Amino acid sequence: MKQHILISDPTLRDGNHAVAHQLSAKQVAVYCQAADKAGVPIVEVGHGNGLGASSLQVGESLESDEVLLTTARKHLGNSKLGIHVIPGFATIQRDLRMAIDWGVDVIRVASHCTEADITQRHIGYSREKGKETYGVLMMTHMASPELLVEEAQKMELYGAEGIIIMDSAGAYLPADVTERIAALVDGLAIPVGFHGHNNLGMGIANSIAAIEAGATMLDGTARGFGAGAGNAQLEVLIAVLDKMGYSHGVDLYKILDAADIAEKEIMPLVPVIKSESVVSGLAGVFSGFSKHVNRISKEYNVDQRDVYFELGRRKVVAGQEDLIIEVVLDIVKRRS
Amino acid sequence: MKQHILISDPTLRDGNHAVAHQLSAKQVAVYCQAADKAGVPIVEVGHGNGLGASSLQVGESLESDEVLLTTARKHLGNSKLGIHVIPGFATIQRDLRMAIDWGVDVIRVASHCTEADITQRHIGYSREKGKETYGVLMMTHMASPELLVEEAQKMELYGAEGIIIMDSAGAYLPADVTERIAALVDGLAIPVGFHGHNNLGMGIANSIAAIEAGATMLDGTARGFGAGAGNAQLEVLIAVLDKMGYSHGVDLYKILDAADIAEKEIMPLVPVIKSESVVSGLAGVFSGFSKHVNRISKEYNVDQRDVYFELGRRKVVAGQEDLIIEVVLDIVKRRS
Repeated sequence: MKQHILISDPTLRDGNHAVAHQLSAKQVAVYCQAADKAGVPIVEVGHGNGLGASSLQVGESLESDEVLLTTARKHLGNSKLGIHVIPGFATIQRDLRMAIDWGVDVIRVASHCTEADITQRHIGYSREKGKETYGVLMMTHMASPELLVEEAQKMELYGAEGIIIMDSAGAYLPADVTERIAALVDGLAIPVGFHGHNNLGMGIANSIAAIEAGATMLDGTARGFGAGAGNAQLEVLIAVLDKMGYSHGVDLYKILDAADIAEKEIMPLVPVIKSESVVSGLAGVFSGFSKHVNRISKEYNVDQRDVYFELGRRKVVAGQEDLIIEVVLDIVKRRS
Repeated sequence: MKQHILISDPTLRDGNHAVAHQLSAKQVAVYCQAADKAGVPIVEVGHGNGLGASSLQVGESLESDEVLLTTARKHLGNSKLGIHVIPGFATIQRDLRMAIDWGVDVIRVASHCTEADITQRHIGYSREKGKETYGVLMMTHMASPELLVEEAQKMELYGAEGIIIMDSAGAYLPADVTERIAALVDGLAIPVGFHGHNNLGMGIANSIAAIEAGATMLDGTARGFGAGAGNAQLEVLIAVLDKMGYSHGVDLYKILDAADIAEKEIMPLVPVIKSESVVSGLAGVFSGFSKHVNRISKEYNVDQRDVYFELGRRKVVAGQEDLIIEVVLDIVKRRS
């Protein structure tokens, strides 16, 4: 038996992106029961952008954080309840304090890959309250391995008990993951994890590359439920880990059942890799840009693929959606 | 630029499995036009089990081989027209001779991984007629690398100009592919190719492992169209090959367009990795067993997953569907 892998399941958080944050309390209850039965160690729940993110700007949740988290709490027995926390969306005094009151076990404090500084106070608070605390770096294909290590070391210094890097745009190939995870394992004294997306069909392969490079934590969602091409598909990941002899504590048959239940009860559509997801993954652009890219490309009759590749060249990050119109107008100008 | 990869696209052949061989002439025409425009080198067309396979036993085609192939011929300009030929289904005098008359360019003669002997006469005939001729070994996870090399060498001796190994059950992880392709590249003087399925989410990763181990031919289908979890997804594969710097002659934007057209015009459903596909891949059982496993498992109220794993242990191959009932009755007996 090889090393133990800690599985965290953000079906009810990343999946919320796929339904414009409209997951209901009933859906949360049903999936939590199934995941708990399967022995999933951590079930992450919330708005797609995490705690406190429900807003006009990034989308309003159907249910409040309180309903989402207290419902999950009620239906999780052995599984720990996790949350995704982006400082800026989630305040300490309003959101984090209450989430802890509602019974959250695991707090993952996340920032853009070059902005670990903003996580210091949230990580500190979570540790102070005795919660299992991780640092999460998002859109990590935008940073060099060296820079990622520096940012992760900051989180370690702040008190994070482990670091998870996210391939938020689904831009990595396995060799990219190997390089980054190996650098992190080398540069940190705490465990390293990987959260993969499937834009280039590498959700599972990248996750396996991560653990072969020394990562000991992986994220995956039922049927890959998530925005666009979706996440690493959890039940497939469990099957592959079983085949390779990694221990993880999740029951294969029961996680297959949980995925069947999730497909039936919470997914309007199972994620597939559409052409747009391939392009956004190749360009390294976050899937959150999709709606705007689509609309503006159509309005000005330009090829949305050209827009993605230009946005990728400009290294846009979430919050820079206003650059889309600039890029589109540039393409129109060059054409005429 | 790294080595050139020869792409073959069996969307209109392996995809026929996904619709019980009901692809229409109109659908063949539409997809051939799109694939031809994208510069796909070889477009493979036919019944899921290849030339001459339409029958009550494995399913009757909506269209005859003549209609499928002459329609494709009419709509392919630069792309070559390929066929999958399993001796036993396809006779030389009736089927192969006519297919050549209908204008087929590329003939791939296939057998179970341990039965290359049956391909000798078909390969010989195809070469005699001056056609581009390949040997194909199916269900190759059931043979050791050494045995695969021996079987492939037979095909080489018969005159095959290249050997493609298929992961028909979607059972491989990348390391399995690397080992087998490296052995074949080492043991043959002709090019080696790989045809992947996605049961364990490794369709793309296994294809990349194959070319990194020295393969120079890859198969993929639009949106992964194929039975169960489907094939390596062609447009994703092209994107990844582009990202890695391999040349292949396929236009990225136009193959994305072709995949969009295929999804709209020929697929009732885009393949996703359902729980059953995970299990059949893990068990190493061909997806053709699915219908029967489902029916008989339900009839006797046994868990179909137990049936798959037991079939896998017994190393069943296509044609041994009568073993399902034996396995199910054994499970029932053990239970009582």
